[in-house]
Formats: sequence, structure tokens, C-alpha cells
Amino acid sequence: MSTPPKVEIICIGNELLIGKILNTNAHWLAKRITSLGLSVRRITVVGDDLDEIASAIKETIQRKPSFIITTGGLGPTFDDKTLEGVARAIGRELEENKEALEMIKRKYEQYVVEGRIEKFEMTQYRLKMAKLPRGAKPLPNPVGTAPGVLIEYEGVVMIMLPGVPQEMMAIFDESIVPLLQRAAGNLTFYEASLDVRGVPESELAPLIEHVMHDNPYVYIKSHPKISEKTHHIELHISTTSDDPNVAKQRIERAIMQISNLIYEKGGKVKPLQI
Amino acid sequence: MSTPPKVEIICIGNELLIGKILNTNAHWLAKRITSLGLSVRRITVVGDDLDEIASAIKETIQRKPSFIITTGGLGPTFDDKTLEGVARAIGRELEENKEALEMIKRKYEQYVVEGRIEKFEMTQYRLKMAKLPRGAKPLPNPVGTAPGVLIEYEGVVMIMLPGVPQEMMAIFDESIVPLLQRAAGNLTFYEASLDVRGVPESELAPLIEHVMHDNPYVYIKSHPKISEKTHHIELHISTTSDDPNVAKQRIERAIMQISNLIYEKGGKVKPLQI
Repeated sequence: MSTPPKVEIICIGNELLIGKILNTNAHWLAKRITSLGLSVRRITVVGDDLDEIASAIKETIQRKPSFIITTGGLGPTFDDKTLEGVARAIGRELEENKEALEMIKRKYEQYVVEGRIEKFEMTQYRLKMAKLPRGAKPLPNPVGTAPGVLIEYEGVVMIMLPGVPQEMMAIFDESIVPLLQRAAGNLTFYEASLDVRGVPESELAPLIEHVMHDNPYVYIKSHPKISEKTHHIELHISTTSDDPNVAKQRIERAIMQISNLIYEKGGKVKPLQI
Repeated sequence: MSTPPKVEIICIGNELLIGKILNTNAHWLAKRITSLGLSVRRITVVGDDLDEIASAIKETIQRKPSFIITTGGLGPTFDDKTLEGVARAIGRELEENKEALEMIKRKYEQYVVEGRIEKFEMTQYRLKMAKLPRGAKPLPNPVGTAPGVLIEYEGVVMIMLPGVPQEMMAIFDESIVPLLQRAAGNLTFYEASLDVRGVPESELAPLIEHVMHDNPYVYIKSHPKISEKTHHIELHISTTSDDPNVAKQRIERAIMQISNLIYEKGGKVKPLQI
């Protein structure tokens, strides 16, 4: 059985560290990457601080994931420092990238046509978005102005996406999904959930262990829910396989076994919509 | 001016890495810790994997924050590995903690009274929640069964909280807030937001730089919103101070200056509710 390629996500932005916004980007990416058959191993959130960004990226490269995907810090303001952080982490200079420059120019010329700005000037702030680490490739941004960026370094594919969710998602869908699909081959993630009542988690624990031991490619995790009157737990059952029938059989077998054990303990089980 | 104590958050759970759930725990903690006057420097998310947990904790300790707060992995199942990870990271044995054992016993005895279980037995799975790294202190869990855990190591206060949000929040409010308040002294975080329309972010960038240069204790960050017809940006203005009047004056002065510069560019500004 082949193992899924590893992915790490790095989210950059003070707004995440002060709790101003929920990290919906990491959630969306993790869900999409998992469903494409790859495995997210770590999510790191750092602020708009050059040292922090550079060291988070350096540490992540050392763990040798197949892909690193960053969000945030690609815009025109002084605190958009992601590309400077990447350049420092991999020891390459930032340089004006012609393709990126063209993308940015076309975007602002379009804004002139739409009446969103009066005229186009290539200021140092706009130019900033076209300064990429040497060897990088810009990725078209169908929604906003800052291009995404792709760069390969020591066998790791690094992809830098903007922090604005609509821009991040659009570049991911257009430019990144095909790369990830190719890396995952036919591997796909399959999951199911059960709603369990009437058995405390500490009594479910040995049942889960037993069923996982008997089904080595299936992962079962219990998620306790707060409930006043009874013990209430969600059981999440998942597997990764390159064969949908094999995956389906694995999940069904595990569900059958754990359900029977729960009934024996006097608990109730019903399937949950995911 | 004193600088705020640094905090790092580590969230543990496969459900976060597969995108099954949004990381509302990190968001809630980051907001609360920031409002208490401390500074969250990094958030790390890892799965239920002993190596990953231990190395994330070890790396975090090396950055020497004042506090490390973890969520998740304290329950009775085999994949609740946080305390084992902490023990390995700091080179201390796990041992039965009498105080923790008492807390857990009382909880299950209460479940018998409430009719949620028939009788109480101290199984190995329940005992597991009372095995803490040597020198650790259990923190009462007013909502669920697994106690929180506090341990000091090389000048870093490490606090382990459960992953169930209601349990995490209850232990935080009861046992952690007083510790953080003492560490922060009178420091408090102040913020305001402006809704800006009609100026692209690349033209706002030099204005922000100018105002921040003139107001060294104020941080201004632009958050572009996707809008079809016009440029639309949220400006977030923040400062940390031990004097509410000083903070208020700083924020008001920065708002006045940036608003005037935006009007000059033909843009519109209005205050936003936070």
C-alpha cells in the first residue's frame, strides 16, 4: 500500500494570532488536500514578522514534506513579507519576475477600464508583488492582484497563496489541484461518522482499540459531545485507498464491528451525515 | 514600555489536519490571550502522533515563550497522547498523580448518582487520564472528566487543556486567566477598525507606512475585501498599553491621520464595529 504524500500548511498574518479572524483558510485547504488523497501533517500560524516567517519555512523544509502551502503576506503593503521570508529561508535573492510583472500590469489596466482607478502607474508598492525569489513561477490570480507563487527547493514544492480567501481558493483550484492530483495518484480519502449515545468515552476506548487492531487500515477517533443527560460521542471512521470498493468494504466492516460492541454495552448507534 | 509576555498555542488532533473541524479553540484562545494583554506568537497544529506532538512541544520550548497552551489529546482513548508527548519532550516520566486520580474518581461517582453510568470502576482507560508527567499539577475540569494539566519547565509554564471546547474554555477561565493576568500586569490590547472604499490597497500602502512611522506604538494592517464594483478594504488599528487613556489617544490620533490621507486620495472612511 502506498502512503499519501505529505503536505504542510503555513498561515501568515497577525490577524490570526490576535484572534481577529478564524483560520478558515487552513480548514478549507486541509479538507481539500485530504479529499485529494494527500496527508496534511502540520499547520503552522505565524505573524507578519520576517524572522518568524523565515524560520517557520526553514523548519518546515527540514521535515521534507512533498508540498508546503502558505497563505497570506503576498500583497503590496510593508507587512506583506512572505516572499522575503521564503527568499531568506532558501538563500535566494528576490528579483523582478517579468511574467509576474505582466500579470500585475494587466490587472491594473483592467481596473482602469472598469473605472476602479483613474490611471495606471507602476509604483514601488505594485512592483513589490512582482519581486519573487529567483527561480519562482507566478500563478495567475483570477480574483485579485497579487499572483500566487510556486518554487521548488530540495525536492519540496512550495506554493505561496494570498490570504484573501476567494483569491486563495481560486488560485488553488486553477493551478494547484492538478499538481496535487498527480502526486496522489489514485489515492482517495474515505470517511463516515456514527452518533453514539449511552456509553462513556472511557468504556468506548477499549472497543475502538479492538476494532482498529482488527482493521489495520482504518482509523477511528472518538469526539465527545457535551450533553447534560447522557454520554454522547461522535465516532469518526476513515481510510485512504486507491480502490473505492476496498475503501467502502473497510469502512463498512469497521462500522459493523464497532456497532455490535456498542450495542453489547447497552449503547445506541446511528449513522451521521458528514 | 514593557513588552507583553509571549504565548504559543499547540492544537493536537487529526480532526484539525483532515479539515473535519474548524480550529475554533485556537481562535478563542488567541482572542482571549490577546485581550488579557499577552502576545500570541505562534499556533501549531499537529495530529495524534507521539513523535509529532513531542517534537512540536520540544521546538516550542526552545523558543522560550512565557506560556505554552495545548488543546486536545487528554482523554481516555489510545490516541490521546498529549501527556506522553509532553513527558517525552521534557524527559520526565508519567506517573500516577493522586490529586488527578481523586478528581477523576469524584467525576465518575457523580455520573453514577446522575444515572449516566451504572457503577464506577477504575479501568486502565480512566487511570490513563491521571498519569501526568512528574511534577505536574492537575487543573479541575468543571465540565468533563479529563483534568487540565500545568507543569513548569525551564522557565516556561506549560498548560494542557482538553480539546472539547466547553471543557477547554471552562478550565481556561477558572484556572488560567488569573495566571495570565498576573503575567501581563496592567498591559491591555486596544483595537479599532475602519471601512475604507475607493482606494486600492497598493495606494493605501504608503499612507499606512507614513502613519505607522509617525505613531510607533500603533500597528495598522489592511485587509482587502472582495468587491465587484469598488476597492474595499478593512483597516485594523491596534496598540498595547498599560494606560487606557494613552491607548485611546494613540488609536484616535492614528485614525485621524490615516482618514485625512484617505480623503485626500478621494476615498471614503467609516468606523467599523469590532
